[in-house]
Amino acid sequence: MRGNAELPDLAMLQSAWTRIRPWIHRTPVLRSRTLDAISGASLFFKAEHLQKTGAFKARGACNAVMGLDERGAGAGVVTHSSGNHGAALAWAARLRGIEAQVVVPVNANAAKRANILRYGARIVDCGPTLAAREAMLAEVAARSGAQVIPPYDDARVIAGQGSATLELLATARDLDAVIAPVGGGGLLAGTAIAARGLRASLRVFGAEPAGADDACRSLAAGIRLPQTSPQTIADGLRAGLGELNFQLIRQHVEAVITVSDAQIIAAMRLFWEIAKQIIEPSSATALAAVLAEPRLFSGMRVGLILSGGNVDLDQLPWQAQ
Amino acid sequence: MRGNAELPDLAMLQSAWTRIRPWIHRTPVLRSRTLDAISGASLFFKAEHLQKTGAFKARGACNAVMGLDERGAGAGVVTHSSGNHGAALAWAARLRGIEAQVVVPVNANAAKRANILRYGARIVDCGPTLAAREAMLAEVAARSGAQVIPPYDDARVIAGQGSATLELLATARDLDAVIAPVGGGGLLAGTAIAARGLRASLRVFGAEPAGADDACRSLAAGIRLPQTSPQTIADGLRAGLGELNFQLIRQHVEAVITVSDAQIIAAMRLFWEIAKQIIEPSSATALAAVLAEPRLFSGMRVGLILSGGNVDLDQLPWQAQ
Repeated sequence: MRGNAELPDLAMLQSAWTRIRPWIHRTPVLRSRTLDAISGASLFFKAEHLQKTGAFKARGACNAVMGLDERGAGAGVVTHSSGNHGAALAWAARLRGIEAQVVVPVNANAAKRANILRYGARIVDCGPTLAAREAMLAEVAARSGAQVIPPYDDARVIAGQGSATLELLATARDLDAVIAPVGGGGLLAGTAIAARGLRASLRVFGAEPAGADDACRSLAAGIRLPQTSPQTIADGLRAGLGELNFQLIRQHVEAVITVSDAQIIAAMRLFWEIAKQIIEPSSATALAAVLAEPRLFSGMRVGLILSGGNVDLDQLPWQAQ
Repeated sequence: MRGNAELPDLAMLQSAWTRIRPWIHRTPVLRSRTLDAISGASLFFKAEHLQKTGAFKARGACNAVMGLDERGAGAGVVTHSSGNHGAALAWAARLRGIEAQVVVPVNANAAKRANILRYGARIVDCGPTLAAREAMLAEVAARSGAQVIPPYDDARVIAGQGSATLELLATARDLDAVIAPVGGGGLLAGTAIAARGLRASLRVFGAEPAGADDACRSLAAGIRLPQTSPQTIADGLRAGLGELNFQLIRQHVEAVITVSDAQIIAAMRLFWEIAKQIIEPSSATALAAVLAEPRLFSGMRVGLILSGGNVDLDQLPWQAQ
């Protein structure tokens, strides 16, 4: 059931980047004078909503799949995912010419479900709880012999996700801080390893929905606390923090800033209007955190990881309110 | 009341480009493998929705305003516009440090109205008809002495708009065709001068909503026909073709392809989903035309001018249907 439980380091991230570079987009770093003026900071948006499959998840999945040896890859790969990781794994498996199966909870967003099918994976439905997901994943893996590629708590996956920040820092050289959304924690852990590994003085922050704030509570408590009945519009950030990720985040991340769903929705709409870019609520969480803490970020050069852009266009959150 | 009624040529476009280059964005040219596969052509999207003020209109307005002599500029500028040209003129006037007044019909889209105010222009309301607009514009110009900068039927404006295609062709060198939406015709006329001026064999097409098809009808008739009660979601394309623009389009444009509002909406939604870019219905008209004529464009390298991205996010067209 477990993936690779090694603690990844900067060298692993750099190897991951080399491995996946032929397959992924080097996404642009976007700027906006208007958003700089609104935030009082200089913002550098790493545009992973323009990544293959519409999310940073392509990086970790590609690193894990391309790193399998021939024998390991033979029976295909399997994961559980409410969306972006599932599509990413489907995409990576297709590149490699192997099968992918994705265990998807029945309440997953329709756009993300369609995205998984688009890349040719087989969807296995399961109940909406983490326990139901894990039980079904174990069953499918045992039956098919497929390799499990976990969505976030895995060294290969974390290393792949961190490559986004290696690229960001190669383009925007003098950042004071980097902020990434945190759900399961793979992106934030990878971001932190990259940022602190390249420059120890770089400040790293997480951004988390108040309705799914286990990372914030875990850092405060000093032990990993469970995510209990998450309630947030940010469907990519409902997972509980992984164990590896907790260790890495505790070591490298200065603080996790929580924001309300109303703040997330306002930030998302602002970015759509100003930057003309479709980002999903999870992405907007990082911008919402910067806007929520103007004194903290005032005058700083801040990199923000825009994690993805897979939105159900029939269900825009400002209309549901 | 008239602006500059000279017929612009390639040299005027090149001067315009030089004049405005310090102020405008050189927008990117976007590609999508998925959209290439869907269309059966190679598509090069000139991303003017990422232009200053969110539309190509910044180019023509900037060229006109920056080209005024000191005396001419003194009493400010005035125009009529349902949206993007008004915001562009407001923006250009602010750069130059002069006043802008914009005559706006009462039925203009709220996002575009807000955009005009954002750049500091004064809005003067008028009735929804072209006659009402022109009467109010004449009144304001006479009262204030402001220079009239027409939205499209003006050599300075056409020359500015054409600079988008000079940039496109500098980036995407081997295009077979270019397609631009047509409303008043300033963008299409400028596109045609640039394209045919740089390479006479380049094929130039217009894309027009079926519910506002005066350009298509005028080309067929060989005389400029009026736009009568336009009905289309593409709020930037409801104007009637200008006289200068008609002459230029008749000379340089191979055909104007008409598409239904349903085709425009489908193309807009497709682009939002695949490219994660917010384009307005007018922009989507060009993509809709390419998708509507697969045999015509099959295997061709086609440049599409995405004219703007100013959408009212509370009124998405696929939800109104």
